[in-house]
Amino acid sequence: MEGFRVLEIKKSVFENNDREADKLRQELKKEKTFLLNLMSSPGSGKTTTLKATIAALKDEMRIGVMEADIDSDVDAHTIAETGAKVIQLHTGGMCHLDAGMTKQGLEGLGTENIDFAILENVGNLVCPAEFDTGAVKNAMILSVPEGHDKPLKYPLMFSICDVLLVNKIDVMPYFDFDLEKCREYVKKLNPNITIIPISARTGEGIGEWADWLRTQVAEWNK
Amino acid sequence: MEGFRVLEIKKSVFENNDREADKLRQELKKEKTFLLNLMSSPGSGKTTTLKATIAALKDEMRIGVMEADIDSDVDAHTIAETGAKVIQLHTGGMCHLDAGMTKQGLEGLGTENIDFAILENVGNLVCPAEFDTGAVKNAMILSVPEGHDKPLKYPLMFSICDVLLVNKIDVMPYFDFDLEKCREYVKKLNPNITIIPISARTGEGIGEWADWLRTQVAEWNK
Repeated sequence: MEGFRVLEIKKSVFENNDREADKLRQELKKEKTFLLNLMSSPGSGKTTTLKATIAALKDEMRIGVMEADIDSDVDAHTIAETGAKVIQLHTGGMCHLDAGMTKQGLEGLGTENIDFAILENVGNLVCPAEFDTGAVKNAMILSVPEGHDKPLKYPLMFSICDVLLVNKIDVMPYFDFDLEKCREYVKKLNPNITIIPISARTGEGIGEWADWLRTQVAEWNK
Repeated sequence: MEGFRVLEIKKSVFENNDREADKLRQELKKEKTFLLNLMSSPGSGKTTTLKATIAALKDEMRIGVMEADIDSDVDAHTIAETGAKVIQLHTGGMCHLDAGMTKQGLEGLGTENIDFAILENVGNLVCPAEFDTGAVKNAMILSVPEGHDKPLKYPLMFSICDVLLVNKIDVMPYFDFDLEKCREYVKKLNPNITIIPISARTGEGIGEWADWLRTQVAEWNK
């Protein structure tokens, strides 16, 4: 028994993704389910961050995770070990998820007993930024080894996110990563973004990140 | 004076990308220009690797670089400092380059005096794998901080490359990266791929990489 199910999601048939995304948010509001869309490059630590996030919040809220991947099940296995409800979404080569695909995922996951749903998007800083998934908030992870110049190179992604986690700060001494410069580049693109430095591995900053999530979930259920 | 020119490339109008790619390779063959398509995630060290590659080969061959980016000029500035001929390609939001776009780039760069042309593709492990650019060889970089499980998650990219550079091996002690497991995953997808561990920062492995390139360029000009 795997502990999770694999869903092959189909290309959406909707012409107007923004309208579908708004409709999905309205449904989530009615069901009192908060949906977070988590994006990043491959290898920036999305799954490890998710594990730390689930550990911090699982006693307070019912968490469900959708692991979007082109083909594999690696991440769903990891998340299933945390005890959270998880479903693997296969995008069949698609490089992003839109609202229609996210809706298929939520239906597969089942949201009636979920307070906090997380979509781990495909590892990609380009295409996922272009499609509203219907999530309540967008989060992204930039990891220290990737470099502080990434906001200059992938500006749309940094512009559409509500929160940026700067991950792997435990290895900061081994890289030329300038956190202040990163902050400056990001804030120029997106003055309202919240920036939280974390290390998913050591747990540093996870408290602040969990607090941010608690506030958002409470706000959504008001 | 910038030392390079910025070219806004347009969406290709060709229906059959594979045919255009083959045509482009034939033209390159006639001109005795070897084209390498270099792909990776954001932040894996493509530009630093390029700098080290140019330093190793610039006295033996005339090198030209096309820096593809959605919007910025950061990398072209860095490469221009090496003295190599460089052009910045703006993809206007496109997440990959196809053969038509690469052809526009090569015309902008001017290949008549170039022996070795390099296309630094958009940082993305998904979409660039799906489009033949017309390059003679495909190379990709996976960096140690990204993790050894990436071949499982982005199989197409690892399948279509002729050579894989495993970069940032100088920080191996600070990450849980298993080079043997990585090799095993990659070879299962692509038994003929050449795998070269490097550190673009310290120069380790760059000699072997330069040798591989010398062999390929010589082979192409036979």
